[in-house]
Amino acid sequence: MRLLDLIAKKRDGGSHTPEELEFIASAAAGGNGDGAGSSSQGGGAPSQVPDYQLSAWLMAVVCRGMTEAETVEWTRAMAKSGRPLDLSSLAAPKVDKHSTGGVGDGISLALAPLVAAADLVVPMMSGRGLGHTGGTLDKLESVPGFKVRIEPDLVKKQLASIGVCMFGQTADLAPADRKLYALRDATATVQSQPLIVGSILSKKVAEDLDALVLDIKCGSGAIFRDKASALKLGKKLVSTAKKLDLKCVGLVTGMDQPLGRVVGNALEMRQAIEVLQGDCTAGDYVELTLALGGWMVALAGKAKDWEAGARRLEGLIRSGAAAERLRAMIRAQGGDPRVMDEPDKVFPSSPEVAVVRSQKSGFVTKLDARGVGVAAVALGAGRSRMEDAIDYGAGIRLEKKLGDPVEKNEIVARLFAEDRSRAEGAVQAFSASFEAGARKPKLPPVVREVIR
Amino acid sequence: MRLLDLIAKKRDGGSHTPEELEFIASAAAGGNGDGAGSSSQGGGAPSQVPDYQLSAWLMAVVCRGMTEAETVEWTRAMAKSGRPLDLSSLAAPKVDKHSTGGVGDGISLALAPLVAAADLVVPMMSGRGLGHTGGTLDKLESVPGFKVRIEPDLVKKQLASIGVCMFGQTADLAPADRKLYALRDATATVQSQPLIVGSILSKKVAEDLDALVLDIKCGSGAIFRDKASALKLGKKLVSTAKKLDLKCVGLVTGMDQPLGRVVGNALEMRQAIEVLQGDCTAGDYVELTLALGGWMVALAGKAKDWEAGARRLEGLIRSGAAAERLRAMIRAQGGDPRVMDEPDKVFPSSPEVAVVRSQKSGFVTKLDARGVGVAAVALGAGRSRMEDAIDYGAGIRLEKKLGDPVEKNEIVARLFAEDRSRAEGAVQAFSASFEAGARKPKLPPVVREVIR
Repeated sequence: MRLLDLIAKKRDGGSHTPEELEFIASAAAGGNGDGAGSSSQGGGAPSQVPDYQLSAWLMAVVCRGMTEAETVEWTRAMAKSGRPLDLSSLAAPKVDKHSTGGVGDGISLALAPLVAAADLVVPMMSGRGLGHTGGTLDKLESVPGFKVRIEPDLVKKQLASIGVCMFGQTADLAPADRKLYALRDATATVQSQPLIVGSILSKKVAEDLDALVLDIKCGSGAIFRDKASALKLGKKLVSTAKKLDLKCVGLVTGMDQPLGRVVGNALEMRQAIEVLQGDCTAGDYVELTLALGGWMVALAGKAKDWEAGARRLEGLIRSGAAAERLRAMIRAQGGDPRVMDEPDKVFPSSPEVAVVRSQKSGFVTKLDARGVGVAAVALGAGRSRMEDAIDYGAGIRLEKKLGDPVEKNEIVARLFAEDRSRAEGAVQAFSASFEAGARKPKLPPVVREVIR
Repeated sequence: MRLLDLIAKKRDGGSHTPEELEFIASAAAGGNGDGAGSSSQGGGAPSQVPDYQLSAWLMAVVCRGMTEAETVEWTRAMAKSGRPLDLSSLAAPKVDKHSTGGVGDGISLALAPLVAAADLVVPMMSGRGLGHTGGTLDKLESVPGFKVRIEPDLVKKQLASIGVCMFGQTADLAPADRKLYALRDATATVQSQPLIVGSILSKKVAEDLDALVLDIKCGSGAIFRDKASALKLGKKLVSTAKKLDLKCVGLVTGMDQPLGRVVGNALEMRQAIEVLQGDCTAGDYVELTLALGGWMVALAGKAKDWEAGARRLEGLIRSGAAAERLRAMIRAQGGDPRVMDEPDKVFPSSPEVAVVRSQKSGFVTKLDARGVGVAAVALGAGRSRMEDAIDYGAGIRLEKKLGDPVEKNEIVARLFAEDRSRAEGAVQAFSASFEAGARKPKLPPVVREVIR
């Protein structure tokens, strides 16, 4: 089998066989599988293929598409590249959540330990932030000492003992996706439904899950601004996951304004701790955490429906079990557990350097998620390029959210950064994202649609 | 301007502006233009772009196509990359011929000096052979000492003195095409009309021509097996060339059987010498040389029509002027001019190691060009891969051609190679390409169609 012939086949609109897709995934992974679960066995995969062949194939896929069956097999092939997790020795159901990304979307930080407290196993592989959206790994690393680079054997060990582990993609897990994800970014081949579906689900399949809940965001701060596009991708994700024997539900959720009360790494980590300690002020954040978690519990067969699952999770927050599970995870991954008790002393923090005030009295009518995300990057909380450093203490505290009543000159947001100069561009970006008006806006629910 | 954005534009079916196409050509050329005629001036072209971006763009072009205007501007942009020839100081019209390639197609070897003898300037940039078709540069190099790597300044000097120079593509001439040609070969992006047109014509535009005659072959030995495909490309080539201010005519010609009486490097070079010395036995070779040359003379305004041009060229053969021009070119490019007088002593030659005989009496009904070309490669006359070495003496002498009467057991071809073992596979390939039958086949003319 030669990659050149497979490029030509896709160029001419042909459909790949499962063997061909395994060949491509294995080639993208550098043929570095050493046997166990690796597709390079017997397939005669080349040890190295040039990037220019992979990118030509990617563009052919963007232009010609993939059938539903191809998308399923492509996902399976990428999941099989490298060495997937094998969690078969753990009796409890394995569940995870994936979000397409948003502003203030630190849901995973509270959700993973919370669901683990319900006796489910949560092997949560996460990513870093780029552009206006943050990344779970960056937020976790705001806890001093917290390690996210964990070898598969240790992931498994930690899951066996405390049921939750949050870690970065390693060289072993779906390496084909890691390679192609970077290449797609550099060759304008990101926008392809089969490639997006394959990238998202291959990592989840490689986690050896039983069930997966998808959070597909729509709105200004999301990849999809309109609900129709989010629904379209969501349906494809759910149907593909089911064909891969993953129980799966997708929630289309709003990302017009940031989630929760804060945007920034340490700020969002603190908020997650507070939520698990019973603080309910971050309304929409709590609501979505319970909805996603409720579905995870229900899909795993531990509650009759998502509402019952959510009620069970609320109980685990009240009992302190959820917070204790987070503490156990922080300890297991080398983090300083005092963040749970003395956050002011332990978390990195930046001085409050600017406030934004409302120009009018009335109600908040606009709090644009993308604009707030861009402001957070300007403050140092995010990255414009992958090699940028992050200021963990930087970020934004939202004193008002959409629909809240506001007085003229009242503070609507506090901006945190290392110094004044960083804050100036951020104030401008934030101000352009905020409006108040006389009429209270009608707010859609956080969860807009459920795809089953 | 970023290549990434241009890839996305073509991916989405957009049309590139001339500036964008210059940017891409300049990027492909490595942004190595040093000013004169280079598109990198002021365009902010990157000094280096990764191959994986170029190949993604190439595949987007294959899938989405180019408009006619884009194809014209793309050709112009590639021609401008590097340093095109500037022949404006030469008063005589500059003309050239391009062939899409065939078996036994050593036409250029006789045609270039012949047309130069008619006081036209022929700056003929040529290529090497790969697969079943030979290459003009390889055939020229069968003349001991003949050099084809010639710097642009010397090309110009030789054209000023003897009106003809046959040379290989240098780093200065259309380097964007040279880069992309290799990349297309490795990424299944060869089959694209705009890319094919751009590649062929950019090199000709970079030669600073006034007129161009195209030989678009159809038949088993050609890229296009059917006449319709050859016509389609030919029409696009001619219309694009005209928009680039090149006088242009395309001849669709037959490549069902090999041209002339021989296939192989020294063999074809000898045949070209003999033709210019007045030997007419290589019937179709002579006929096509005069047709193409006649059109070149006519397009340059030196004859009222191609027939008058051809008659003038016949006169130059009879007078010995054409042969003398070839001798002058061989001398100018370092070759041993004794090949003109004592070919047996000077040309490399291989022993005759095998003959093929007819199994039947009757007429030759099949002499498959591709099969004969494959046999020639097996004998050592061609390359399977670009890095293969060539045996200049190896090749095939066709004692019979399509329609010739033949007796049972009569010799139809003589095979030349270094040793017996090389000949064995070749005999088989040749035999499968040859058939005799009772009925004399009806032969189409060499020139099937003229595109003006």
